[in-house]
Amino acid sequence: MNYILKDENALYYECGYSSDNALYLQCGSDAYFITDSRYTIEATQKVQKAAVITSKDLIATAREILTKSKIKKLHYDPKEWSVDAFSQLQKKSKIEFQKSPNYSHNKRIIKSDEELKIVAKAAKLGKKAFTSLAQEITQSGFGKSEYRLTYDAQSILSDFGRYELSFDPIVAINTNAAKPHALPTEKRLSIGDTLLVDAGLKYKRYCSDRTRTVYAKKNFAFDTDQKFHKKKIQKAYDSVRKAHDHAIKKARSGMKAKEVDALARDIIEKAGFGEYFVHSTGHGVGLDIHEAPYISSKSDTIIEDGMVYTIEPGIYIPEAFGIRIEDMVTMVSGRAVIL
Amino acid sequence: MNYILKDENALYYECGYSSDNALYLQCGSDAYFITDSRYTIEATQKVQKAAVITSKDLIATAREILTKSKIKKLHYDPKEWSVDAFSQLQKKSKIEFQKSPNYSHNKRIIKSDEELKIVAKAAKLGKKAFTSLAQEITQSGFGKSEYRLTYDAQSILSDFGRYELSFDPIVAINTNAAKPHALPTEKRLSIGDTLLVDAGLKYKRYCSDRTRTVYAKKNFAFDTDQKFHKKKIQKAYDSVRKAHDHAIKKARSGMKAKEVDALARDIIEKAGFGEYFVHSTGHGVGLDIHEAPYISSKSDTIIEDGMVYTIEPGIYIPEAFGIRIEDMVTMVSGRAVIL
Repeated sequence: MNYILKDENALYYECGYSSDNALYLQCGSDAYFITDSRYTIEATQKVQKAAVITSKDLIATAREILTKSKIKKLHYDPKEWSVDAFSQLQKKSKIEFQKSPNYSHNKRIIKSDEELKIVAKAAKLGKKAFTSLAQEITQSGFGKSEYRLTYDAQSILSDFGRYELSFDPIVAINTNAAKPHALPTEKRLSIGDTLLVDAGLKYKRYCSDRTRTVYAKKNFAFDTDQKFHKKKIQKAYDSVRKAHDHAIKKARSGMKAKEVDALARDIIEKAGFGEYFVHSTGHGVGLDIHEAPYISSKSDTIIEDGMVYTIEPGIYIPEAFGIRIEDMVTMVSGRAVIL
Repeated sequence: MNYILKDENALYYECGYSSDNALYLQCGSDAYFITDSRYTIEATQKVQKAAVITSKDLIATAREILTKSKIKKLHYDPKEWSVDAFSQLQKKSKIEFQKSPNYSHNKRIIKSDEELKIVAKAAKLGKKAFTSLAQEITQSGFGKSEYRLTYDAQSILSDFGRYELSFDPIVAINTNAAKPHALPTEKRLSIGDTLLVDAGLKYKRYCSDRTRTVYAKKNFAFDTDQKFHKKKIQKAYDSVRKAHDHAIKKARSGMKAKEVDALARDIIEKAGFGEYFVHSTGHGVGLDIHEAPYISSKSDTIIEDGMVYTIEPGIYIPEAFGIRIEDMVTMVSGRAVIL
């Protein structure tokens, strides 16, 4: 199949290298990595199974290669290409451009053994960082603002700059955690607060992703056995934990993604919190922090061995509190295993 | 004029608010801010001069508004819209969609007095952070890796999480600085190294941007009066500084951007380093770290009072060293004033 890719992680997946200004073109049995002169040396050393071409105008170079080739059809991802870039690509071309939405994500949905090792290591480092963060917060976090705690989370997750992060960590206290994508505020942490931390790091470019919600006290741990003083919070927490545990226990290869979503959602609905579980149960994780499969109530994707995704049910009561518990799993011999 | 915008900073410029899932639609005298329910409360509080509409499918909602309106032509930026999103927008529409590349950047090219105050404050905070970073490095930076120094730069620039950064800071030592967009390595800082730092922070969403290259020694300062031990480095440094100072001194409103570029470039060429000045002299700075005007050898943009841009000549000798000095300027009464 002939295709052209633009996204950095899509490029990396094809040939083991990417730069922020590059294209990957597969034309019959010939593959090309087109980039500008800033990256020639690195690209030549690192690109596998593709010819490296340096150009001042990547799209024009791709057009030239396409014109010389005899191919009639080229696949591209319409989500990857801006209207502007795509109109340059197809300028005066006789090739049929075929839309393939999520081309690379679909290709990457089942991880190889090599990828699984890397993503497991990322998850392990992420988990370890949560342990260190709990120690840091218990020692010196009380009285600090969400801004500063977010900074501390970044420091520890990145091992002070060594690892890239999967995304900006979320550190949210009490009512702020009721927003699924909370931004940090000046709110300061006190004993007895509900504290939500959602964070991940990248190891060899693969992402980790993890969320814990805890009752903030001295010597707390980011485990899933929390005791809250308020009954309503405890009830919501127990429902989220039950939904999380149940979905992981009962997920099977061969199920549709929406069936996995329902495993978690049914429990939260039965507990009376259905309207407060405002997002899907999970998402695939790999080179991108959000990729296929999407564990949503609308997805007919069949779950298969080798897929990696999150299970992260949540309950968000506006102006009150938010609870989320998230782990990454991979499917092994038909069952979900926590990474 | 009727137009639709998608980029977060473009939205913020129109109405003082943005979210990561929103559209701004100007239809005749009516303006709409379309976002999803996660942002309803904030948007209702903060959006100015536009009706806030909550939707699960933003583009479908925009289409409905467009269908009901009587407008015939709608401007959009083909760089802002993916092929996929745009094909959803124009589905079954009878409206003429008019390409307006860089619509928002063009609109934002001259800053208001209010914006100039904010961007001046951002630059001032950025400068102050460089002073703090020099103290930090001189106290405890020698022996640290580029990774760790980059982390320290992030800490200080962000004031430990308080400010967002304009971009990931660049901290590059000796040969690594020969790459204009160097990524950090394990290389550790020693006395006598050539150290390049390029970093900026955001104040009220407006970016600062600043680069200094220094001879690393105890009690160094990020000033532009550096003494290097190697003659070739000193010659390159003096050329860059002369180019930087000359461009700022001689830039005038009414000039073309390429004439400002030439002010710096001519000096570096005459010094014999022309082939090593591999990028343009500067770029506009505002809500985006790179926006109009672009101070490049190809730009016919006329420089005007109220524009804000960088002057950042550089010399990059592969495998040897890199020098860059960057300041932000704004045009006041026809002349460039350093921010």
